[in-house]
Amino acid sequence: MEEASRPKEKTMEEAKGFVRRVLLFKFKAETAPDHIEQLIKDHSNLVNLVESLKSWHMGKDVSVKYSNEGFTHVIELTFESTEGIAAYMGHPAHLEMHERIWPHLEKIVVIDYKPTLCN
Amino acid sequence: MEEASRPKEKTMEEAKGFVRRVLLFKFKAETAPDHIEQLIKDHSNLVNLVESLKSWHMGKDVSVKYSNEGFTHVIELTFESTEGIAAYMGHPAHLEMHERIWPHLEKIVVIDYKPTLCN
Repeated sequence: MEEASRPKEKTMEEAKGFVRRVLLFKFKAETAPDHIEQLIKDHSNLVNLVESLKSWHMGKDVSVKYSNEGFTHVIELTFESTEGIAAYMGHPAHLEMHERIWPHLEKIVVIDYKPTLCN
Repeated sequence: MEEASRPKEKTMEEAKGFVRRVLLFKFKAETAPDHIEQLIKDHSNLVNLVESLKSWHMGKDVSVKYSNEGFTHVIELTFESTEGIAAYMGHPAHLEMHERIWPHLEKIVVIDYKPTLCN
């Protein structure tokens, strides 16, 4: 059928075997929106400070159905390897950012995976 | 500094304003591993059946810290627009897959967002 034969996107991560970390944030109700914006902006700067962090993307929830469990922000981080994640975890810039954001989070999920086309 | 000036990856999604859906799955303990593998494989085939679904990637949890809240599988779907997500949601192939996977899930998070470089 037509759908099956059309070209689909292939990402750099897939080609290179990158590792992705996804963070889901739900901020506390008492954290002001402009403070949240500043925290996210500062977090984005980690891509300029941490060598092993190869890309940083963020998106606010735009879900139309309600399986988002109240999470409002998604941050996608891309690394070349799990060792790169370990280097990031121990980097002073990340540790400082972690300390600043953590008190404002009502809940968080962090999960690391290697995106592939199938199992 | 050196880190700040080196080129970073720029994805097709970013350039084209794609919308991403991330699904986090935790399967029930009683679902056999080979059944899980089959469900994931069958889910991957949606990229061949649903026109608005532009890419499909999956990864099993490889987290080294324990903020993954028990989720074991991440599926990343990419669409050109939120309308594309709506079309996917209503597509018979998706609806059938949903019915097959849902009974095996202990928990799930689904969140849609438009990946950007910052707020």
